[in-house]
Amino acid sequence: MQKVYQYIDDHREEYLALLQKFLRQPSVSTANIGMREMADLLKATLTEMDFNVEELPTDGYPIIYGELSGDGDKTLMFYNHYDVQPVDPIDEWEVDPFSGTIKDGKIISRGTADNKGQLLSRLFAVDAYRKVYGKLPLNIKVVYEGEEEVGSPHLAGFPKQYPDKVATDGVVWEGGGRDTNGPAHITLGVKGLCYVELRVRTANIDAHSSNAPIWKNAAWRLVWALNTLKNEKDEILIDGFYDDMAPLTEKDMDFLKSIPYDEKSVLEKMEMDGFVNGVTGTELLKKLLYTPTCNICGIKGGYIDQGSKTVLPAYAMAKVDFRLVPNMTRERVLDLLRKHLDKHGFTDVEIVDMPGQPAYRTNLDNPLVKAAIASSEEVYGIPPAIYPNSSGTMGVYHFCHDTGIPCVMYGVANEFSQVHAPNENIYVEDFFLGIKMSATVIDKFSKADLTL
Amino acid sequence: MQKVYQYIDDHREEYLALLQKFLRQPSVSTANIGMREMADLLKATLTEMDFNVEELPTDGYPIIYGELSGDGDKTLMFYNHYDVQPVDPIDEWEVDPFSGTIKDGKIISRGTADNKGQLLSRLFAVDAYRKVYGKLPLNIKVVYEGEEEVGSPHLAGFPKQYPDKVATDGVVWEGGGRDTNGPAHITLGVKGLCYVELRVRTANIDAHSSNAPIWKNAAWRLVWALNTLKNEKDEILIDGFYDDMAPLTEKDMDFLKSIPYDEKSVLEKMEMDGFVNGVTGTELLKKLLYTPTCNICGIKGGYIDQGSKTVLPAYAMAKVDFRLVPNMTRERVLDLLRKHLDKHGFTDVEIVDMPGQPAYRTNLDNPLVKAAIASSEEVYGIPPAIYPNSSGTMGVYHFCHDTGIPCVMYGVANEFSQVHAPNENIYVEDFFLGIKMSATVIDKFSKADLTL
Repeated sequence: MQKVYQYIDDHREEYLALLQKFLRQPSVSTANIGMREMADLLKATLTEMDFNVEELPTDGYPIIYGELSGDGDKTLMFYNHYDVQPVDPIDEWEVDPFSGTIKDGKIISRGTADNKGQLLSRLFAVDAYRKVYGKLPLNIKVVYEGEEEVGSPHLAGFPKQYPDKVATDGVVWEGGGRDTNGPAHITLGVKGLCYVELRVRTANIDAHSSNAPIWKNAAWRLVWALNTLKNEKDEILIDGFYDDMAPLTEKDMDFLKSIPYDEKSVLEKMEMDGFVNGVTGTELLKKLLYTPTCNICGIKGGYIDQGSKTVLPAYAMAKVDFRLVPNMTRERVLDLLRKHLDKHGFTDVEIVDMPGQPAYRTNLDNPLVKAAIASSEEVYGIPPAIYPNSSGTMGVYHFCHDTGIPCVMYGVANEFSQVHAPNENIYVEDFFLGIKMSATVIDKFSKADLTL
Repeated sequence: MQKVYQYIDDHREEYLALLQKFLRQPSVSTANIGMREMADLLKATLTEMDFNVEELPTDGYPIIYGELSGDGDKTLMFYNHYDVQPVDPIDEWEVDPFSGTIKDGKIISRGTADNKGQLLSRLFAVDAYRKVYGKLPLNIKVVYEGEEEVGSPHLAGFPKQYPDKVATDGVVWEGGGRDTNGPAHITLGVKGLCYVELRVRTANIDAHSSNAPIWKNAAWRLVWALNTLKNEKDEILIDGFYDDMAPLTEKDMDFLKSIPYDEKSVLEKMEMDGFVNGVTGTELLKKLLYTPTCNICGIKGGYIDQGSKTVLPAYAMAKVDFRLVPNMTRERVLDLLRKHLDKHGFTDVEIVDMPGQPAYRTNLDNPLVKAAIASSEEVYGIPPAIYPNSSGTMGVYHFCHDTGIPCVMYGVANEFSQVHAPNENIYVEDFFLGIKMSATVIDKFSKADLTL
C-alpha cells in the first residue's frame, strides 16, 4: 500500500481542488438549491473516472449510481449523499458557506464533513489504487443519494427496485471521523429517526395581545403541550416510549469503555456549562449512544423580529425529532405521541409526520468489519474506537436489514466538524488520511475469505 | 351642530383622500420604516390647517406638537400617534398593507384603526368646525407621538420637559371604537404593560441533534421556563404577581353590565372554538378588563423554515407581555419574574426589559367625560358603553396621573378592526361618525362649567 499512499501524497493539490469544486456547488435538498447542478457534477466526475454511471429517478431527487469493475467476484459498495443541510443561521458563518475556504489547516464549507469530503475521499481511494496498480482488486459500486438531509424519503425504495444493484459483499456507509487527539471511529449501526412538526392553530389570524385574558394563545398551547413530552430531568414522559428499546448487554457496555470522549474539550469548545443531567464518563456515553431522544429542532410562533410587538399568536409550531435505538420504530412512536397528546388534552395539536427511519445495528464478526479495523490501525497507527451504533441516523437500515449485507462507517470528520451547523469543517490532513483508509479497506477486503 | 355635520358629509371625498395619503405612507417605528416622511407629512397637514407646529426631538422619533387658538381660556388636547405596527405576517394580507384600499365599505390598511384614522377624524372635526363657524370655541392642542407601537419609551419625558404644553383642561386619548351592531365605547383608563424578552443560550452555536441525549437544548430550557410562568388554567404562577391588584368594587362590576360583547360573532369571525377557561358573560368581561396577563407574543429557536433539519438549538427566545391592572407596576413585575425564574432553577434565562408603563384610570365625574357621553348619544343615537379601563395599554398615564387632567377615549374602530394584525380596517361610515363625534365633543366641552 506504500505506493498508493505515496501516490495520494503526490496528488494532494489535484484532490483538494476537486473537493473545493464540489463544495462550491450548493446542493440544499430541503430548499431545492443547486440539486440538478450537483447531480450533473457528480455524474461527470464518475464518468471521468471510468465508472458506468446511471441516474436513477425517484419522486424527489435522483440517485446517482456507478459501477467500476475490478478483479474477482467480490464487490464493495460506497454509499454517500450529495445533498447538504441549509446554511442558516448564516450570520454565524465566518466564511461564505459555499466557498470551499481552506484556512488554518481546515476546509470550511457546508458539506465538507457531511458529506462531500467523505464521498470524494472514497472516490479518490479508488482513483489512486487504479492509477498505481492499473486495476482494482474487486468491483466497486457507488450509490449517491440526494435526499439524505431530508430524511431519505425514497431510499427505502432503492433496494426493492434494484435488488441487483444493492447485492454486494459489503457496504461502507456515509461517513465517520476521529477524535482530534484520539483514535479513528468505526461505527456499525445507527439510531432511527422519527421527525414531526407539531402545529397549533387557535384562531384564523393573529390578534392584539389585549385579548390575552380571554382568547386562546397558540404559542402557550404549544409550550404546554411540549412540556408534557419531556421534563427537566430529560425523562421522556410519553407512555410506553421506552418499552421497545433493545435491552443493553454486557458487551454493549464494554464497547463504551473503548470509546474516548473528551468532555472537557467539548464543553470548552461549545462554551457549555455542563452536560444534560450532569452525566460524565461511561454514563455519558451510554446516554449518548443507547438512549432515544425527544429534541426540539425548532420552535416558532407570533412576532419574532426585533423590538416589541404586542400580539396574540393564532399559530405556533415546533419541529421535534426523536432518535430511536434498536428495536424502536417510528410508527410506534407516532402512535404513542398521538395518544399522549390526546390524553393530556392537546387534541388541538396536529402531528405532521415527516420522513424518518428505524434504527439498525450490524454484526461485529464479519470480514468487512475486520478489514476496516485492521486498515484503521495501519493508517492511523492506533486501534479504532468501535461504536455498535452512532448517535445519529443514516439510511443503512434499508440496505442491510433484509439482505444481511455487512456495513461499516468511518471517515474524515472530527468531533468539532460542526455538522449541520455554521462553519462546518474538516482537517485537510484527515481528508488525506481518509483517502488512504479507503484504499487500504479495498485492499484488505479484497483479500478476505468470505466463506468463513 | 347640524351645519357642521352637513359640512362633514359634503367633504367626504376630500377627507377620505387625505386619510388614504396618510395610510400610503408607511411608518413602522419598530423597524424605522418611513418615520421621517410620516412626520413631515403630519407637519405639513397641520400647517395647512393653520396650527402652530413644533417638532420636539426625543432620543427616538420626534413628537409633533401643534396649537390652534380659539375663543376663551379652555383648552382640549388630542393625543394620537403616527407610527404603526409591522405588517407581518405579510402573506395573510388580502391587500397591500400600505395601499389605503377602500373595499366593501371598509378602509383596509396598516394604521387605519391604529392610529391614523383616529388622528385624522379629530383633525377633520377641528377643520369642519372652523370652516362652518369661522373659529373654534376653545383652544386645541395636538400631541402626535412616533413611538407608541414600541412602548412609548420617551413619552414619560414629555410632560416633565414641557409642563406648559401638557397643561390643558382635558385630553382625548389615542382612540376607540364601537361594536358593529352596538354602542360606541368610551374608555376612561388603560392597563399597564411590562414587556420582556426571555433569552436562553446553552452553547455558542447550534449543533447536530444527535447530541441531544447529552447536550443542553436552549429551546427546551425556554419551554420549561415558560411553563412555570402560567398553567393551562390561565393562572399566572409567579409568587406575588396578583398581590398589588386594586380590589374590584361593586361599581366596577356594575360597569360590566352596560358593556356589550358579542361572544358568538367574535368566535365565528376569529374561527375560535371558545374562550380561555370557557368564560362567558360578565365573567368574560371581568377577566378581559380587570385581570392582568402573561402572554407569549412570540417564540423562536432553532430551525423554523420549511422541511426538516435535525438541529440542537443553542439559542432560543420568547417575547412576553404582561398587561397590568391599576396599582400594578412594571418594576415590581420584573422583580417578581426574576425571583420566580431563579427559584425554579432558570438562572440561565435572561430577562431583557423592554419599554412599558403602569396602569391608569381616570374619574367618571368630570365635565369632559360628561361631554363625551352626551356627544356619543347624540351622534350614534344610543348611550355609549363605558369602560373604566381598556384591555390594552396607552401612554395616558404619563399625562394624567400627576396632573389630574381628565381623559377620555373614543374613536372610529370596531371589534373586528384587526388592530396589530393583518387586514387592519375600519368602516368608512365609522370614520365620518368619528369626525362628527369629535366636533360635538369640542362643542359641548366648550360650553361646560369647569368650576363645578
